[in-house]
Amino acid sequence: MSLLVVGSVAYDGIETPHGKVDRMLGGAGTYIALAAGHFSPVRLVGIVGSDFAPEDKAVLHDHGVDLEGLEKAAGKTFFWKGVYSNDMNARETIATELNVFADFNPQLPDSYRETPYVMLGNIHPSLQSRVRNQAAAPRFVGGDTMNFWIDGTPRELAAAIRGWNFILINDAEARQLSGRYNLRAAARAIQEMGPATVIVKRGEYGAVLFHDGGRFIAPGYLLEEVFDPTGAGDSFAGGFMGYLAEQGVAAGDPHIEAHLRRAMIYGSVMGSFCCEQFGIGRLRTLTREQIDERFEEFRRFTDF
Amino acid sequence: MSLLVVGSVAYDGIETPHGKVDRMLGGAGTYIALAAGHFSPVRLVGIVGSDFAPEDKAVLHDHGVDLEGLEKAAGKTFFWKGVYSNDMNARETIATELNVFADFNPQLPDSYRETPYVMLGNIHPSLQSRVRNQAAAPRFVGGDTMNFWIDGTPRELAAAIRGWNFILINDAEARQLSGRYNLRAAARAIQEMGPATVIVKRGEYGAVLFHDGGRFIAPGYLLEEVFDPTGAGDSFAGGFMGYLAEQGVAAGDPHIEAHLRRAMIYGSVMGSFCCEQFGIGRLRTLTREQIDERFEEFRRFTDF
Repeated sequence: MSLLVVGSVAYDGIETPHGKVDRMLGGAGTYIALAAGHFSPVRLVGIVGSDFAPEDKAVLHDHGVDLEGLEKAAGKTFFWKGVYSNDMNARETIATELNVFADFNPQLPDSYRETPYVMLGNIHPSLQSRVRNQAAAPRFVGGDTMNFWIDGTPRELAAAIRGWNFILINDAEARQLSGRYNLRAAARAIQEMGPATVIVKRGEYGAVLFHDGGRFIAPGYLLEEVFDPTGAGDSFAGGFMGYLAEQGVAAGDPHIEAHLRRAMIYGSVMGSFCCEQFGIGRLRTLTREQIDERFEEFRRFTDF
Repeated sequence: MSLLVVGSVAYDGIETPHGKVDRMLGGAGTYIALAAGHFSPVRLVGIVGSDFAPEDKAVLHDHGVDLEGLEKAAGKTFFWKGVYSNDMNARETIATELNVFADFNPQLPDSYRETPYVMLGNIHPSLQSRVRNQAAAPRFVGGDTMNFWIDGTPRELAAAIRGWNFILINDAEARQLSGRYNLRAAARAIQEMGPATVIVKRGEYGAVLFHDGGRFIAPGYLLEEVFDPTGAGDSFAGGFMGYLAEQGVAAGDPHIEAHLRRAMIYGSVMGSFCCEQFGIGRLRTLTREQIDERFEEFRRFTDF
């Protein structure tokens, strides 16, 4: 089944200890869409400027991403530039130029309204709500957020997530949103705000699923070499939702937990592949066979 | 089968956000012995001062720890005092008084020489070698170390670990010892120094086993409340080695990896219990049934 993705489509400048790229296709919406596209058809809602290159549009199109919802506006495309520390564990933002993204007011094409799965990338919570409300009765809906919105627009964020089935959030943000340091306590507090399913991302350490009073801990893959961690969290989101959409899982399914657990591993698989090359490089060359091989590898190094 | 443990037996002063204790039984040797004692008979080699209380000796004795190797010397027992940060993720050492431990020169009683399992707690690597060499052909031997010895006595440490079957080390120390940041690369470099089995402890995130070209990732338990993390790493070591000794696993066994994986989980179980109360409190009240219950809980939150 189809997955609706809303999020930034951007140009990124990235410097890691392995090298430097001045300008390449990036943005949360791009990573989510390309990762999810390995599992199910994706419909992308976003905005780009008049400088958006036909080759980059072709990259998305060639990976089966429907672009009817990708608006093109006069001006420049969102630009972000970051530099990673030597150990890759810290990154500094050098530039954030919102450009056309500053006036982004997402509109769903009519053909998108019945999309059964909805992944709301990290944008202003009022825009997340607007997209959510334009979708007719999705089977599974949720999104991501960040410290900027938790701090700056707490009421809008609370209103947005109230109707979500799941939230994807990193550990520092889960603590900030809930006001609780302990991760289990934080997850419980967030569940009380709306989403029955809380996924806490922990960077290289993996992610934890909180659902129905229980938890599932997915480890990080431990790559031999991390080339560029940009987009790993969004690739996780894409793998997670792409798998659920592929399987046709709905929020009230009796066996949803088993699906959520496998979706966590597919998310981890996609996040790990993403780090193997600069930007979206690895997401483009990846095959479903390689994805499933790595899924089985996760089994092997967690089985006891 | 029996396990020989060498390590500090100490008095600790500890302050956490949950409370404060001025003086209580502690030390790596104590935690390892009490944790391992839930699985197999333990023989403890250590030193205490004339102030060592009969009640504390009784605690060890009552948990089946053989104390023939616990030397009593004129002077005071090793004393350590630490204060934890509010989030428990950092601790400051307030006092380290070696006292009688400064002249510790471990001697194995004759009755200890044939002990099949040997866990060398974190002491001077030359003393670790001395203990190792007094043991006759153990089935499985290894130990712990720390930044202080990696920095200060690298040659002695290299000589010590050359003959170990396993090393237990935290992630920062694995990086320091190997000079490699990537954990897989660090583990491989350490394996080349001697131990075929490298266990990297990652605090609340769990631990990773590197063995025979592969890896096994054990997650942290995610406690509802961390009361006092002191001794968690040593309790992990005790659970790990106690289980291997109980099962009679030898270094060359064809099915050793399956045992090592379960030993990692028993280690994680013991480390998690240790944090539930101050000091050795929880290790004292714990039952084997509770240990096995938590082992099964680890299965439930890692299964997919």
